[in-house]
Parts: sequence; C-alpha cells; structure tokens
Amino acid sequence: MVIGAIEAGGTKFVCGLGNEDGVISERISIPTTTPEETMAEVVSFFKDKGIEALGVGSFGPVDLEQLSATYGFITSTPKPHWAQFDLVGELKKYFDVPIGFDTDVNAAALGESLWGAAAGLDSCLYMTVGTGIGVGALVEGKLIHGLTHPEMGHIMVRRHGDDTYAGRCPYHGDCLEGLAAGPAIEERWGKKGIELKESPEVWEMEAHYLAQAIANYILILSPKKVIVGGGVMKQDQLFPLVRGKVKEILGGYVQSGQILEDIDEYIVPPGLGDNAGLAGALGLVKSL
Amino acid sequence: MVIGAIEAGGTKFVCGLGNEDGVISERISIPTTTPEETMAEVVSFFKDKGIEALGVGSFGPVDLEQLSATYGFITSTPKPHWAQFDLVGELKKYFDVPIGFDTDVNAAALGESLWGAAAGLDSCLYMTVGTGIGVGALVEGKLIHGLTHPEMGHIMVRRHGDDTYAGRCPYHGDCLEGLAAGPAIEERWGKKGIELKESPEVWEMEAHYLAQAIANYILILSPKKVIVGGGVMKQDQLFPLVRGKVKEILGGYVQSGQILEDIDEYIVPPGLGDNAGLAGALGLVKSL
Repeated sequence: MVIGAIEAGGTKFVCGLGNEDGVISERISIPTTTPEETMAEVVSFFKDKGIEALGVGSFGPVDLEQLSATYGFITSTPKPHWAQFDLVGELKKYFDVPIGFDTDVNAAALGESLWGAAAGLDSCLYMTVGTGIGVGALVEGKLIHGLTHPEMGHIMVRRHGDDTYAGRCPYHGDCLEGLAAGPAIEERWGKKGIELKESPEVWEMEAHYLAQAIANYILILSPKKVIVGGGVMKQDQLFPLVRGKVKEILGGYVQSGQILEDIDEYIVPPGLGDNAGLAGALGLVKSL
Repeated sequence: MVIGAIEAGGTKFVCGLGNEDGVISERISIPTTTPEETMAEVVSFFKDKGIEALGVGSFGPVDLEQLSATYGFITSTPKPHWAQFDLVGELKKYFDVPIGFDTDVNAAALGESLWGAAAGLDSCLYMTVGTGIGVGALVEGKLIHGLTHPEMGHIMVRRHGDDTYAGRCPYHGDCLEGLAAGPAIEERWGKKGIELKESPEVWEMEAHYLAQAIANYILILSPKKVIVGGGVMKQDQLFPLVRGKVKEILGGYVQSGQILEDIDEYIVPPGLGDNAGLAGALGLVKSL
C-alpha cells in the first residue's frame, strides 16, 4: 500500500511516501509560509504518486473531534496565516483517499510505539523540546484525546532558584515551554543553546525544568517509555542530567525497576530519530 | 446479577451488594485494622450472599499487571500490616467468582463515567482530597494504567508565596499531597479544616494548590469532566475559588467552551456523592 505522510510543522512541512510497515521511501521538506504557497507544493508532491491513504500529523492546536464543523482545522494558532485553516479539507479537495489526522506529537508517539523506542508497548510518551515543547502520548494502546487534545508543553513548573528570566509563553509567561524551549534558552542566556554547550549552569537549569515536567507526566500517565527528542535534546549532556533529576524528584515513590534501576533505558531519545513524526503519520492510517 | 463491591480504603473497607446498573442494595463499613481482622469481616459479609462477581477498588499502590506474580497485591504502602498483602488472592480463597480489581480512584472515575457526573462521556478525571490526594482517570474509554498506575496526587506544584509550611509527604515533602491534603491543612494552620471555614486565607491557599494540579491534569489528559470529591471539598467555598484559579492559570489557552464559559459544569462534585467508589467497584466487573 502506498501511503502519503505529512508532518505539518510551524517551520516546515515534511512530506513522504511510505507503507504500512513504517518504511519511508521518499521525503521532501517544504517551508511553512502561507497556506496557499505551502499547500500548493504539498499537493504537487503527492499528485501522480498513486497514494491510497494519507496520514497527517500537524502542529496545533487542531480540531480532532470528528463530528465538529471544524474537524481537521488548525484552530487558534498564533502563527500568521494559519489560524482556522482547514488542513484536512484542503487535502480532500485533491486526494480522494482516507485521511488520518492527529497532532504532530501524537503521531510521533504512535510512530515510536509501532516501530521505534517503544515498539511492542501499548503506552509511551513522546516529548519534543525545540522551538516549542510538544508532547504526545499513547495510553492503553490509544492516543490521548478528550475535551481537546493534550497541551502538555504548557504545564506550570516550579521555578529554579537562580532563574530570574520572565519566560516567554504568550499565554502563560513562565510555563514549561515559556521557560525551557529553545527560544527561552537563547533569550535567557543571550546565546543559542548550541553555543552554550560548555556552560553547565545552562543545562543544569534546563534539566531542572524538563525533569519536573517528565516526573509529572510519569505520575499522571505512567507511560511505559519516555521518549525525548527535538533540537534542544541534541545536547547529549542533557539526558543524564534529566534522568538523575527525575529519580531525585520521584524519591523512590514509583516502585518500578525501570525507574529505580534502568532509567537509562526508560528515558530515551527517539528510536526513529528525526523520522518519528513522519513514520507516525504513516501509522495514523492504520486505524482508519 | 448479584455483584459484590469493595471500596478498600486505608481507614475503612466499604462493602456492598449491587447490580450491573450501579444500584447498591446494601452496604456496610468495616474498619481497616489488620488484614486478618478486616478480611475476616469482609468475608463474613459476602458469605451466603450468592455473589456472582466481585469488584474491588483499593488504596494503593497496588499491582495491576495481570501477568505479575504479585497481581492483586497491595504493594509498598506505608500503612502498617498491609504492605505486600495479597488482597485479590485472599478473596479468591473464599469466592470462586470473577474478580475485577483496580485502584480506588480509578474505580470512582469509572463509576462517575457510568452513572455519575460524567455519564455518557468516554473521558473524565476523579480527584479526592481528604487524608490523602488520589486521582483516577478514564481516557478514550479506558482507565489509565501503564508502567504502574498513576499517582497524580504526588505531582510537584509551585509553592504559594505566603506558605512557609514544609509539607508532610514522606516521599516528596512538599508535593501536592504533602501541601494540600487534609492533614497538611491541619498541621499548617494548627486546626482542622472544618474549624477554619471562616479563614479565607486557608482556602485561597488550598485553591492555589488544587487549581494548579487540576490545570496540569487538564493540559496533560484533556478530560471531558473534572470531578472533585473527598472530605476537604465539603468546604463549599472551595469550588468557585478552584474554578476561578484554573481559568486564570490556563489563560485562555485551552479553547474549549467548557472551560471558557461553562466551568461551573466542568469542574464539579461527584454525581454519585460518597458512593462513587463503591458503585465504581461494581463497574469494574463489567469489563471482566
């Protein structure tokens, strides 16, 4: 089966072709400019490829309520031009195939559970720390949705004692994303994260925030694997710091060998690397 | 069908008889002393009642992994005598019927979703604020389990600026339960909550903690209904304070009418009152 996959991000749309085993045979990257420009290129890529289904993982917030009048829309994003854009509807105009649709991070969680670091598990959390912080989760074999979809990147965390930075989330100021996403690191320290590798205080503070969030996710969702990706996590020194602080925060309370003894195998980078989102979009088609 | 239901709590075991529609016909309360004493009374209550199935919602932590050697055990509880007690195994000795088993708060969430404040919904959160803080949740029609079961009462929250109390959780000190359960209120203010009704600063601080936790649960789980019960919530003044602070923390980010316009119908007391846990135990039998 030829499946089209779209990882619709705020910076770029990654489009690919693949199959139901998560194998990606071709991929391109299209800059996210205006819906008109970007979608024209997306349509042009998939036209004549003979796709039999399409999976879309999108930046959000998105409307995932099948019965809603705005199902398939990107809704209240602050990103210029894209608020209230009917993403699924636009694709339906050109492709008369089943379309699976979810958030980019839910798609990535699904991809990791099918073919990545959580393969064989019915539960995992996928977190990306980059220009924003997004988190998707599979629980009891299902991607989480409810009133809307989770927005776990915006939880409130306890501030680090040495941190005087105000935070930059337009909604919450110093929520997790406001304090710990890439742009917050850059604004707080006056340099990009990548130039701060030799400044341990930067990563100690970053780990303080990420570990708190992950500890809360563990206490609330009890995921069987915690997968953390995104540009900020390319700083290798972060993983051991985050793992250590998660254990410290949980204080031995969650009595699982995977946390108490094998945390190096519990909090891990994506098994699919940068393909988690695109492979996950392929996976969204499986449940149609 | 005659179903036996047990709400196994750290203070008392509530036992009842009911049916698959959640109707409870008889109930008794047995003090939680030692497993020998308490279980003898439990067995004696159900003996000769002709039960065809048994549902058990228990205080925890419990082992819910069906394939585990300690499935059905109360595991690492600090409660004297009850650690590593084989609750389901003990019941199986006397009752040769299918036994449903989950945490007390997951059972209550199920009960509320079947017959209470979340009736008809496939998603809800049930929180109890009493001698401890416990939270159960139904997501996409399923009670949440994973690595273990959620322990949401122990999440870390940002401290109130006026709060110098150290917190009393033996594992985490000032986690949510350590700061906001009934015993913390009593220790901080030197009086039981029930005697502090006329002290608005007590409830403003309490709402600060509960609202933060609920905002985090909403961002992480996106429940379709948030149900809050337990002894501390009998203070009627708490609900409006909590609702107001949840809205304030979310800052308009979760664009749902139920939060932005109808929060009085979104964060609510249990529809089943003090029967949520026992009715939920009946409900646990439905999935056997």
